[in-house]
Amino acid sequence: MASHFMRKNNIKFYFNADRIYRRYSVIASVIKEANVGEVTEVKGWVKNLRVQKELVFADISDGSCAKKLQIVIPKHLKTDELTYGSSVRVIGKLSKSPRGQLELAAEDVKVLGECVVLDGYPFNPRTTHSAEYIRQYLHLRCRTNYISALLRIRNAVSKHIHNYFDTKNYLHIHTPILTSNDCEGAGEVFKVLPDNKDTIKAMMQQDKNVDNVYFGSKTFLTVSGQLHLEAMCRGLGNVYTLGPTFRAENSRSRLHLSEFYMLEAELAFCENLEDLQSSIEDLLKYIFIETRNTNEDDLYLIDKEKNKPPTWLDKKFITITYTEAKDILKRKGLPDTEDGINKEQELALVAHCDNVPVFIVRWPKEQKSFYMKESQDNTKVEALDLLAPITGEIVGGSLREDDYKKLKLKLPSEALNWYLELRKFGNIPTGGYGLGLERLLQVLCSVPNIKDTLPFPRWPHNCDM
Amino acid sequence: MASHFMRKNNIKFYFNADRIYRRYSVIASVIKEANVGEVTEVKGWVKNLRVQKELVFADISDGSCAKKLQIVIPKHLKTDELTYGSSVRVIGKLSKSPRGQLELAAEDVKVLGECVVLDGYPFNPRTTHSAEYIRQYLHLRCRTNYISALLRIRNAVSKHIHNYFDTKNYLHIHTPILTSNDCEGAGEVFKVLPDNKDTIKAMMQQDKNVDNVYFGSKTFLTVSGQLHLEAMCRGLGNVYTLGPTFRAENSRSRLHLSEFYMLEAELAFCENLEDLQSSIEDLLKYIFIETRNTNEDDLYLIDKEKNKPPTWLDKKFITITYTEAKDILKRKGLPDTEDGINKEQELALVAHCDNVPVFIVRWPKEQKSFYMKESQDNTKVEALDLLAPITGEIVGGSLREDDYKKLKLKLPSEALNWYLELRKFGNIPTGGYGLGLERLLQVLCSVPNIKDTLPFPRWPHNCDM
Repeated sequence: MASHFMRKNNIKFYFNADRIYRRYSVIASVIKEANVGEVTEVKGWVKNLRVQKELVFADISDGSCAKKLQIVIPKHLKTDELTYGSSVRVIGKLSKSPRGQLELAAEDVKVLGECVVLDGYPFNPRTTHSAEYIRQYLHLRCRTNYISALLRIRNAVSKHIHNYFDTKNYLHIHTPILTSNDCEGAGEVFKVLPDNKDTIKAMMQQDKNVDNVYFGSKTFLTVSGQLHLEAMCRGLGNVYTLGPTFRAENSRSRLHLSEFYMLEAELAFCENLEDLQSSIEDLLKYIFIETRNTNEDDLYLIDKEKNKPPTWLDKKFITITYTEAKDILKRKGLPDTEDGINKEQELALVAHCDNVPVFIVRWPKEQKSFYMKESQDNTKVEALDLLAPITGEIVGGSLREDDYKKLKLKLPSEALNWYLELRKFGNIPTGGYGLGLERLLQVLCSVPNIKDTLPFPRWPHNCDM
Repeated sequence: MASHFMRKNNIKFYFNADRIYRRYSVIASVIKEANVGEVTEVKGWVKNLRVQKELVFADISDGSCAKKLQIVIPKHLKTDELTYGSSVRVIGKLSKSPRGQLELAAEDVKVLGECVVLDGYPFNPRTTHSAEYIRQYLHLRCRTNYISALLRIRNAVSKHIHNYFDTKNYLHIHTPILTSNDCEGAGEVFKVLPDNKDTIKAMMQQDKNVDNVYFGSKTFLTVSGQLHLEAMCRGLGNVYTLGPTFRAENSRSRLHLSEFYMLEAELAFCENLEDLQSSIEDLLKYIFIETRNTNEDDLYLIDKEKNKPPTWLDKKFITITYTEAKDILKRKGLPDTEDGINKEQELALVAHCDNVPVFIVRWPKEQKSFYMKESQDNTKVEALDLLAPITGEIVGGSLREDDYKKLKLKLPSEALNWYLELRKFGNIPTGGYGLGLERLLQVLCSVPNIKDTLPFPRWPHNCDM
């Protein structure tokens, strides 16, 4: 690090010596470096314990990787407190087992925190608990293989997303969580106000509605950062955001959350859907392949059977128009719906395409939002949904209406005059899309329930902790 | 990209050909690569226009970097629409000006979007508008030098933070925005409920309070992800979060926002304040030095005078106890305050330390939160504040109480029993800190008002867009 610091500014840098990180080694590094013969200190939790005649074998994890480090403990160092679930500090010499596996021959073992399973610890050794059971213990579930692996993959996917956009010269924009826009048509919203009645009283002016007192207007949790990104795109070029988004819907399905993460990107000077599609396809393949490179062990930990790359990774995504999609569904004999394509139909279309992700493009304009650019025939908009196996819709996007007069006619509220004004001064064509991070993780890791793809899921009647 | 994709998985990858990115070149790349003689297409906004006898000189920016690209336009290609603020597409050959500056000799110029300043565009050519003036036009202000430079630096600082923690094996955790914890003692909170009365009606059970209907308990916007991080730290090891945080305070100072970004880190197996301090100092110096490396031009654009590295960058941060700090303030003759250290006193302490950041450590326990670890003498806690020039307090942190019995006595609410239970099963010592991203940007870029360090500031009576 120090040499890196010195690189350019020629600053005499006070070197911190990285005290805290030298004290002990993270197991991910110990396994990677495999310095056989070296005295090493590790700290972590006992995941498995096998007591034999003269030796005790303990598998230790510190959460830094999917793999455990095997510790070989002479019987006289085994205390009663050294149990499944306890936290320990171990000092010893790294060696290779007769089978060639890296292990640590313990010379000193200290239990830092006991774990008495009979005292109410919900997890048991050598037991695979169901995801539903584990989900009851949100505060402890990151100690399980399943959830820890998913959270490491979530961390990696976020990193890959940032790296991807950084390489392509996109700026990461923190779009706001609080917004006074209430008319984006993306479903139901949460409103926000101070909890303290005294604050409201002190700020009250002329019998204003209590909802408006703090910010001067009714304020909501964001349903999308798109409109804000469009403002940024018209000064900074390509931009994206990756952050929390909210829906106040009464839905408890395996695909819905009240709070979820959304990746949204806005492409400057984007003039046709094909460019938007190729950009989305490129990103998704990048994430899938990079994550397989960085987190192979975690994918294996989640599912020993399913951790193969998806069959579509070497294929071009399919594109069909909305009209063609409806025809296919009719031919398949699925019950017709007047408007749109429902979840069952989405999954049928993906199956029809041999489980290759499929773009449905050019939607009837009355089904889509006001900001989408009209197609040449005036009945459609330049919009796309990308459907994938497991979740169905995973990305939604469009070109944006860049004609000032057309947009003015469709603007749902005067409160959005700022958005209209973006088209008045030095306007550019743009297009963009939104991708649900949790649904992406469901597809990537074959996770049936979206609630297991993030640390603290929130859905109706559930906001524990 | 393609070769990178092939690296490991041996997948026959469908190559997207990166259509959209080849169409035109981002100005940051054009300037970096400086391929004199190459035919190049750029798109951007006219920032400056000088009309001479036979040639027109236009400075073009596309937001990708602080620098503008000079375009040399033969007079016959200059149309009336080619004005300050308009968006353009230019094709031409890259060359060097007589002074050695890279420029583009235009062969084709197309105005994409007009900009009639007299029609209400708030910015004028060759004019430096004040930050207060610019702040009135949130939707357009990213087109100014000041704000675009600050947003590029914000992007870079976020990136450096993620890179720093990734290198050190920390996992990035998305702690929740919605929480039912209301007792962390970090000030005033916003409450959240569905806006739609029909949703509330449909979900209502037995005359419940309307605030509790959707989630089953009253729900707030997070004031800190710390308690959630502590749960994660006890399964995943070192963790951090970088995300939005909220305060419902009626404060309109140049240092406060209702919505701001906080970096919070929790260090596994951290047993003393000194380790925590050296970790914070290391991170801050890394961010400052890396940002000077990546965004020198932006720092210059913000302030031609002040873009020098801070004098403290090659010095060790200072540490004094709370008791010593109070003695220093008394000797300086500053009016005494009973509890704590106020903003004026913070800045006086930093000045006393020759403007080197200073840790104030070991605070009276009654001034700090319940979760902080008691010092040996039982009257203090192992807490720290880091004070910096310009903003005063910039980091707050502590060791966490890891004694189950002591914590049980101090727990403010039964709703936090989950937090107590973390100490019961395989507990470990931890410590952590929180750093306000906007205040960090204020210190880094000498920005007087916090509202200019993020794209869409929210404060009392202000939640536009």
